[in-house]
Amino acid sequence: MKVEHIGIAIKNLSDSHALFLRLFQQTPYKEESVDYDGLPNIFFQMGETKIELLEATKPDSPIAKFIEKRGEGIHHIAFEVDDIRSEMKRLADEGFRLLNEQPKSGADNKWVCFLHPKDTNGVLVELCQSKDKDAKLQK
Amino acid sequence: MKVEHIGIAIKNLSDSHALFLRLFQQTPYKEESVDYDGLPNIFFQMGETKIELLEATKPDSPIAKFIEKRGEGIHHIAFEVDDIRSEMKRLADEGFRLLNEQPKSGADNKWVCFLHPKDTNGVLVELCQSKDKDAKLQK
Repeated sequence: MKVEHIGIAIKNLSDSHALFLRLFQQTPYKEESVDYDGLPNIFFQMGETKIELLEATKPDSPIAKFIEKRGEGIHHIAFEVDDIRSEMKRLADEGFRLLNEQPKSGADNKWVCFLHPKDTNGVLVELCQSKDKDAKLQK
Repeated sequence: MKVEHIGIAIKNLSDSHALFLRLFQQTPYKEESVDYDGLPNIFFQMGETKIELLEATKPDSPIAKFIEKRGEGIHHIAFEVDDIRSEMKRLADEGFRLLNEQPKSGADNKWVCFLHPKDTNGVLVELCQSKDKDAKLQK
């Protein structure tokens, strides 16, 4: 497992884009207009880990609810795994609750699964696996 | 800049140690009895980034106050820089408020400086630089 990315919940992507440019002194490596939850994303590559800015667009989105409750800030940590299905099974057997029973299609060409933050000291943990890797495994 | 570590505020180090062992399926690479704020720390190495567990020991510690306000969870992101003093100056010139005016001695043999989270979308950002690197620079 390595830290693939850290997701940050923000109110306005344009403002935060400018802010993080000043902070990191580098341009994002990728921008996606929408991800699986209909969110626009911006990714900064910081070493082998990415910082992902997640804008709250709709009032009922998970990001909007997070911001309403806690304000802007760090939303989740994503760990890259080689085989998401076996890791999901291992963690479920260990007693961690999975927020989705099957891997779902996520941003940045990944299969993803979230764990219930009440089982992980309030940390929203995402597991992710590159779809390219999955395709290779299935060959 | 790379993501050097992610700090997680927790109530009980022993419980969280056991929890993260189950989650990561690996042992910590380091345990420190106390850091600069008098906190016991446990570090897990996940790729090039570390996960640092920070226990709230004293009721008036920053970690205890964080947990009282927001519950356990992700506390800060630390970015490693080559020269913390020049980076502190650059960020101050960019308008980011520094929580300490001079680098302070942090956990894991580092010089550290925190930025005011109100300037960074609610994210508590730590800058850090290895003291070994500093010693080399001063030779």
